[in-house]
Amino acid sequence: MKLAVVGGGSTYSPELADGLARRSKDLGLEEIALTDIDAERLRVVGGFVGRMLRKLSPEVRVTLESSTEAAIDGADFVVTQIRVGGQEARKKDEQLGARFGVIGQETTGVGGFSKAMRTIPELLKIARIIEERAPGAVLINFTNPVSIVTQALLNHSSVNSIGLCNIPIGLKMDVAKILGVDPARVKLDSVGLNHLSFVRRALLDGKDVLPGLLEDAGAMREGKPANIPELDYPAEFITALGMIPSDYLRYFFLQRETVDDQSKKEKTRAEEVMAIEQDLLSHYADEKNEEKPASLSKRGGAFYSHAAIEVIEAIAKNTGDELVVDVINGTTVPELPPDAAIEVPCIVDARGARAIAQPPLEPSIRGVIQHVKAYEELTVRSSVNQSRRDAILALAAHPLVPSVEVAIGVVDEIGGSLGLS
Amino acid sequence: MKLAVVGGGSTYSPELADGLARRSKDLGLEEIALTDIDAERLRVVGGFVGRMLRKLSPEVRVTLESSTEAAIDGADFVVTQIRVGGQEARKKDEQLGARFGVIGQETTGVGGFSKAMRTIPELLKIARIIEERAPGAVLINFTNPVSIVTQALLNHSSVNSIGLCNIPIGLKMDVAKILGVDPARVKLDSVGLNHLSFVRRALLDGKDVLPGLLEDAGAMREGKPANIPELDYPAEFITALGMIPSDYLRYFFLQRETVDDQSKKEKTRAEEVMAIEQDLLSHYADEKNEEKPASLSKRGGAFYSHAAIEVIEAIAKNTGDELVVDVINGTTVPELPPDAAIEVPCIVDARGARAIAQPPLEPSIRGVIQHVKAYEELTVRSSVNQSRRDAILALAAHPLVPSVEVAIGVVDEIGGSLGLS
Amino acid sequence: MKLAVVGGGSTYSPELADGLARRSKDLGLEEIALTDIDAERLRVVGGFVGRMLRKLSPEVRVTLESSTEAAIDGADFVVTQIRVGGQEARKKDEQLGARFGVIGQETTGVGGFSKAMRTIPELLKIARIIEERAPGAVLINFTNPVSIVTQALLNHSSVNSIGLCNIPIGLKMDVAKILGVDPARVKLDSVGLNHLSFVRRALLDGKDVLPGLLEDAGAMREGKPANIPELDYPAEFITALGMIPSDYLRYFFLQRETVDDQSKKEKTRAEEVMAIEQDLLSHYADEKNEEKPASLSKRGGAFYSHAAIEVIEAIAKNTGDELVVDVINGTTVPELPPDAAIEVPCIVDARGARAIAQPPLEPSIRGVIQHVKAYEELTVRSSVNQSRRDAILALAAHPLVPSVEVAIGVVDEIGGSLGLS
Amino acid sequence: MKLAVVGGGSTYSPELADGLARRSKDLGLEEIALTDIDAERLRVVGGFVGRMLRKLSPEVRVTLESSTEAAIDGADFVVTQIRVGGQEARKKDEQLGARFGVIGQETTGVGGFSKAMRTIPELLKIARIIEERAPGAVLINFTNPVSIVTQALLNHSSVNSIGLCNIPIGLKMDVAKILGVDPARVKLDSVGLNHLSFVRRALLDGKDVLPGLLEDAGAMREGKPANIPELDYPAEFITALGMIPSDYLRYFFLQRETVDDQSKKEKTRAEEVMAIEQDLLSHYADEKNEEKPASLSKRGGAFYSHAAIEVIEAIAKNTGDELVVDVINGTTVPELPPDAAIEVPCIVDARGARAIAQPPLEPSIRGVIQHVKAYEELTVRSSVNQSRRDAILALAAHPLVPSVEVAIGVVDEIGGSLGLS
Repeated sequence: MKLAVVGGGSTYSPELADGLARRSKDLGLEEIALTDIDAERLRVVGGFVGRMLRKLSPEVRVTLESSTEAAIDGADFVVTQIRVGGQEARKKDEQLGARFGVIGQETTGVGGFSKAMRTIPELLKIARIIEERAPGAVLINFTNPVSIVTQALLNHSSVNSIGLCNIPIGLKMDVAKILGVDPARVKLDSVGLNHLSFVRRALLDGKDVLPGLLEDAGAMREGKPANIPELDYPAEFITALGMIPSDYLRYFFLQRETVDDQSKKEKTRAEEVMAIEQDLLSHYADEKNEEKPASLSKRGGAFYSHAAIEVIEAIAKNTGDELVVDVINGTTVPELPPDAAIEVPCIVDARGARAIAQPPLEPSIRGVIQHVKAYEELTVRSSVNQSRRDAILALAAHPLVPSVEVAIGVVDEIGGSLGLS
Repeated sequence: MKLAVVGGGSTYSPELADGLARRSKDLGLEEIALTDIDAERLRVVGGFVGRMLRKLSPEVRVTLESSTEAAIDGADFVVTQIRVGGQEARKKDEQLGARFGVIGQETTGVGGFSKAMRTIPELLKIARIIEERAPGAVLINFTNPVSIVTQALLNHSSVNSIGLCNIPIGLKMDVAKILGVDPARVKLDSVGLNHLSFVRRALLDGKDVLPGLLEDAGAMREGKPANIPELDYPAEFITALGMIPSDYLRYFFLQRETVDDQSKKEKTRAEEVMAIEQDLLSHYADEKNEEKPASLSKRGGAFYSHAAIEVIEAIAKNTGDELVVDVINGTTVPELPPDAAIEVPCIVDARGARAIAQPPLEPSIRGVIQHVKAYEELTVRSSVNQSRRDAILALAAHPLVPSVEVAIGVVDEIGGSLGLS
Repeated sequence: MKLAVVGGGSTYSPELADGLARRSKDLGLEEIALTDIDAERLRVVGGFVGRMLRKLSPEVRVTLESSTEAAIDGADFVVTQIRVGGQEARKKDEQLGARFGVIGQETTGVGGFSKAMRTIPELLKIARIIEERAPGAVLINFTNPVSIVTQALLNHSSVNSIGLCNIPIGLKMDVAKILGVDPARVKLDSVGLNHLSFVRRALLDGKDVLPGLLEDAGAMREGKPANIPELDYPAEFITALGMIPSDYLRYFFLQRETVDDQSKKEKTRAEEVMAIEQDLLSHYADEKNEEKPASLSKRGGAFYSHAAIEVIEAIAKNTGDELVVDVINGTTVPELPPDAAIEVPCIVDARGARAIAQPPLEPSIRGVIQHVKAYEELTVRSSVNQSRRDAILALAAHPLVPSVEVAIGVVDEIGGSLGLS
Repeated sequence: MKLAVVGGGSTYSPELADGLARRSKDLGLEEIALTDIDAERLRVVGGFVGRMLRKLSPEVRVTLESSTEAAIDGADFVVTQIRVGGQEARKKDEQLGARFGVIGQETTGVGGFSKAMRTIPELLKIARIIEERAPGAVLINFTNPVSIVTQALLNHSSVNSIGLCNIPIGLKMDVAKILGVDPARVKLDSVGLNHLSFVRRALLDGKDVLPGLLEDAGAMREGKPANIPELDYPAEFITALGMIPSDYLRYFFLQRETVDDQSKKEKTRAEEVMAIEQDLLSHYADEKNEEKPASLSKRGGAFYSHAAIEVIEAIAKNTGDELVVDVINGTTVPELPPDAAIEVPCIVDARGARAIAQPPLEPSIRGVIQHVKAYEELTVRSSVNQSRRDAILALAAHPLVPSVEVAIGVVDEIGGSLGLS
């Protein structure tokens, strides 16, 4: 088995490599091919990954490829974790949001839009390479905004693509910790889109324990991803809802507070991450180091490696495990279009990921999911068609954009560099 | 034919009565029964209506009834134009919005929610009376928020109910005026919800002339309803959209500007209307007057009478005219639930109103319509169940409510008087 | 206005021409262009039509064109009434059914399949000509099997196509006759496919009188089309159903009896028609004759001209009349695919025909309609792809084909001449 | 864990008991409670089951209960395998079919209808007892016609009901045998209704090997259930279809041949089974016997025990195994109503069975599935409402009933004893 990592120079790569190394025999892993457009980071991170693997799992070959084609050629799995434009671009997105008085986060609002527009064309290029060089490969897309990027892949390429995020597994780990049980005994019935999902049942050994958990809604506050603000839903809202909303739903249900909070922050999240990354890269560059640093956990990707390996294992070993991933909708959630990317529990085996039947969306969650999906669909269309018109309509259709003047203003700023016309 | 007007003391009644009088022979109208819980206004307005009819159409009997049952008994048509709590309640709704920094308008946002919650129980009581006293009657509901109230009627009574608003006909008149043609040659293909609809084709003698109209988007700025702020969409948005959005969509597409504007207004719309109504009532009270005053047009109900009479005539005379009204969805707009009230062109004849097939909703308009419909569904549910929980979820599901803290705060303020628990 | 008739040598043409002549001034009709691949019949029938028009409506020009392109060029309406292979082919279809012990009728069963496969390519050729020579024209397709042929046109050309049959109007005339009222006061709410439709409400001045009509189910037996056998549904079935099924549904609900009856007939319907046509052609050929012969009514096309002119008038004069025609489904009947051709009441005006919302299909009628539609879809696919595989699947999917051996046997017989592979 | 078997006197019971005994420790099985209205058979079969268990798994208690309530009280699983009216009733159903010249088989056609009508009320009674005495229990329904009976349970009781049949597992075993591999490596992607399903992919270690299998369609002829006639599909049909149809689909795709064949048989299947059962009961009655007899395999229930234990184990041990069972549709197969029972691969765990997403139904299989489902829905309705009208409509809606005269004739014969009015 060959696994290719596009964006292999990411500071996350050692996390993934560490996880793969520990399961390599079981998975039959023979080669990890890393590629990155930043040759220096590929050298530094790739070198560190090579040392890790030599120690943990010497039978696995680590190859560093300057060409994406070479990395992907003949791969069984391709993991994409690129960040087009790097943290500098992220910083600009966050500032863009602040300047317009709206959310500039990298996965939603105008920040997410800007990132999606930069990213979709690159992912579709990678998909074209997979179609040619590794037509049977599974593409595991970690690149944010996962929901939009995965929908672009599902609708505009023939690659067997699965979107993946560490939030569902992180939430499961949190619930297991609160319950004080082995995570293997816990399953979460969640529904929605990536970063816009709701847990409707929390199962311990197959029995729903969510009502008890929600009685102490405060109990859910641990283990939040590090890259979103520290806000809390009022307990009565959670009780009324009867579900656990994804932390990212705070951008919607506590929009006002989140925007206020963003305006008070002195540093963007991008700037915080840049500092963390400098530390990590120093660690990786030191030829003496061959174990992942403790500080990696600050980077925000808890369980990232775990999530990836769960999917790879389910496919490679044809297990049929139930995992929460991003797939094509079909009629699973009939309140959304058939070609939408959705995030629901799926059966994952050698066939790929197949969604499990869902009960209807409650109206309390239906509207916001549908609204954001319409925005996502328009964003994909705008990117594929390089259309300024669709870009304006996409932002105007976003529930967090409070005026079409903002939509037009944002497109005026970023549309030129995106080549929209 | 007997027509009952519930809320007959409304200052609009003379407008309706004037229209009916002019078509009474054609319609076979024999009796107009007015009822109102405000005995003094019923006396003043009803007295004036009686004088009007005696002059214009003396064969029609005008009866003033203190009992709703008596007014409805045996009616063929029931028109509802009540305002529960009067302009005082409206003023409170508008102030409620201002206090929370959100839209307090009477048909949307927290103001619309408050009005809907006060109004639904009263309309359902009227429906019960119709079920008993006039089971074959058609209920024409003008009471705002028309979309929510009509959905409550369609889902929770067996009465043949049609929601009606003067916006669609007003927009058609505007378009005819811009084109310089007889309105009878114009038809608008609009789709959506009441106060949340989009014109996708504007037909002159059956040929679509919308693209030409949108080239000069400014041309559409005339004839706006008097009760919404004077804001303008940027021309590029309208061109990108390729449709005419209802003026009320400014609350969504220009939310920020509308809230700012609201905060700067010294008087609420309710206070403006109260002053206008005083003038009108003085006119009506003067026994010498038997014609509707010119100032009635300031009240905001342009074409109100025209719209009502179009529907009544289509049913009474079984014409099959194409009119834009609010009806049950079924599968006409499959992106919305089957039991939703929608506002689309319908064929109206003795069978009632049947929707005409619609093309799919474009994603540029789909999200906001779906989002608001989810809120509307929860509002109906909250009212019918007198549920505080559903009230919180309804407001949390409204795209113009920027925080669940606002949702809970509003329910804290008004939930008690509504009897929620 | 120019109207082209493809298959203008049909013995029906004088019926159509007679109707057009009587409304020509009202419609603004300037030219009727007839074309036919049978030059002799075009000469005979066209000559007669010319004499009729000269007498009835001399301002209308009648042109006989040997080229379909020339006939269609610049037309506003194109009426198609071709019979590929003529009555000889029909005879073979009927004998084919008899040989396999199944229905060989020209619109359903193996006979209908054979006719559809011969006909679809010709209609699509005509559609291509319209796309080039008369892109704004409306195609009114009378060619059987109307349901399948119209679906092919709707799915495989951009022409504004409407399927039309004289059955709905004939049934309405029957009902009016039974009720003893002017047909203008009657409307039938029917749903389904062409030749597979059910009347769910019969409205007299907008009030449903169907329950009373069904009490005497025998009353419905008049006015049946001349080209289907004289069978009767048992009264209890009609009462249980609570609807009037199209006469052609006898092939399904009385399949056994119809097959028995077919096996006892000495002459095919084709042979009967050939004799009638000889008489008609003799009449037409006689230069003294300039009025349509009484015997034309035996040909089976009662109200054929009436039906066509209703549609032409509704479009040309933008009336918005409610007419039962064959159009694209969309979500009108959600139990059928969106791209299905369905036969339901539509609003017909300058925009074309738009379906009116329908209540859900009752299970008593749902299954057979869905089953036949699947067959129809496969037939269109088989014709467009010239696919033997799809042809076998189409017949295997037909509820009146009792064995896949029959399906394969029929395809063995006719597949070669159709060019299937 | 307690497992109750209603219809415990069935000659199948030893098969089930044998399987349970071999897994009892793993499952934590403590008690098997058998109940039957036939006290003598309960004594004979129950006695034999007791001896089997004492030998194989002495820690499991076998209780024989004359009262269904007592057997079900506190059960975790209830297995229903009743045959209302016994083989005598089956014989009458088969003769009924023969008399009308139509299929009289016990799961489809008029035979299946008759059996469904006798059976639904009894299963709903059992469901009521479960609701009261064992509200958390899972009902595994083996009672034919499984599709209709399970739909009645799903729509008219709150019991967690799963329909189960040995056909899917039998087909999987056949495919494994043909491939020469361990059945654990094989999964079949099938879709449809019980006894009306189609295998669209056959997966060996997750890779589709169906195309190869179909090349030699003859290879699929082994392992057919013993209770349907020995007919073969023509190879070209199977190749064209590209799927494996359930053997029971021969009643539809080879209807003519199957009816012919039925008319030639001297004995009904019921009579054959009666003879087999006499043998089995003699074996069971002999107190020396404590192992299941070889002749049990002739009874037609191959893998019956295997199928049951797979489901019980998946639920009891919360495994999430992928099994083909009968569940509520929801939107899994959007071409069927949401409340339909469908047979598809499901994830089975402590939550019950949840369907896995399905691609759209191909038109080659869609029509017949939809048609039969409409019949099934009407049959459930007729039984629940004891309605003669719905019974006629049900049979008239069955694609194998060639005339409404047959529908009425059958209802005339059996309606009285069923209490229809």
